[in-house]
Amino acid sequence: MTDTETRSVVVEREIPYPPEKIWRALTQPHLIEEWLMKNDFKPVVHHRFSLSADWGGVECQVQALVPNRTLTYSWDTKDLESVVTWTLTPTDKGTRLRMEQAGFRADQQAYLRGATVGWPRFLDRLEEVLARTD
Amino acid sequence: MTDTETRSVVVEREIPYPPEKIWRALTQPHLIEEWLMKNDFKPVVHHRFSLSADWGGVECQVQALVPNRTLTYSWDTKDLESVVTWTLTPTDKGTRLRMEQAGFRADQQAYLRGATVGWPRFLDRLEEVLARTD
Repeated sequence: MTDTETRSVVVEREIPYPPEKIWRALTQPHLIEEWLMKNDFKPVVHHRFSLSADWGGVECQVQALVPNRTLTYSWDTKDLESVVTWTLTPTDKGTRLRMEQAGFRADQQAYLRGATVGWPRFLDRLEEVLARTD
Repeated sequence: MTDTETRSVVVEREIPYPPEKIWRALTQPHLIEEWLMKNDFKPVVHHRFSLSADWGGVECQVQALVPNRTLTYSWDTKDLESVVTWTLTPTDKGTRLRMEQAGFRADQQAYLRGATVGWPRFLDRLEEVLARTD
């Protein structure tokens, strides 16, 4: 049954800002561009958007959205069909931010490794954006 | 904030057996021993148990349990504090089984890699147990 096996990359961080501020950075195109990629994102269920970078692009579609709490979009490249889910949980100190990218098949270890290395970098950049914006 | 970052290992598989059969393999000590490790597991919230292998052991405590649906236990070794959550979802073909081990810190990459390699092997063995038991 290994052909139906999928893996996820999960990164969770405690971030010292309220969910509302982090939500803006996750959903406003000019802010998304600063930490992730150029994009035509809209916070609307079923909206299709692209992320584009020097190395290529990602085709996405918003699947679910609860403002300031959770955001899910598909994340497809040439041979990867995956789903990214952001979950924001308020804490005493700010927000517990969880990112899960699900759908890596057993034969997609290179993608899995790339995402394992890549997401903490994106989150570092996200935190830099948060530090310099209202 | 990277010191508060944690990662998870997630493996999901479609398995051609009903949740009740998989649940038995996840919760009966003599079956757990066949695919995971020697143990004194009991399906009782707050029950503390140990998993033991040639290379050492794991200290665990049941945190949550809904028969045939979900099982959560802590999974602690000398320097790793993690949580394993099993989720069983019935499907047309059997069961979607999800295993998540959460709590790997950014400085615990070796544990993360070990778990990434190890869990699919445990799941292979679990499927072998399922194939030869009622």
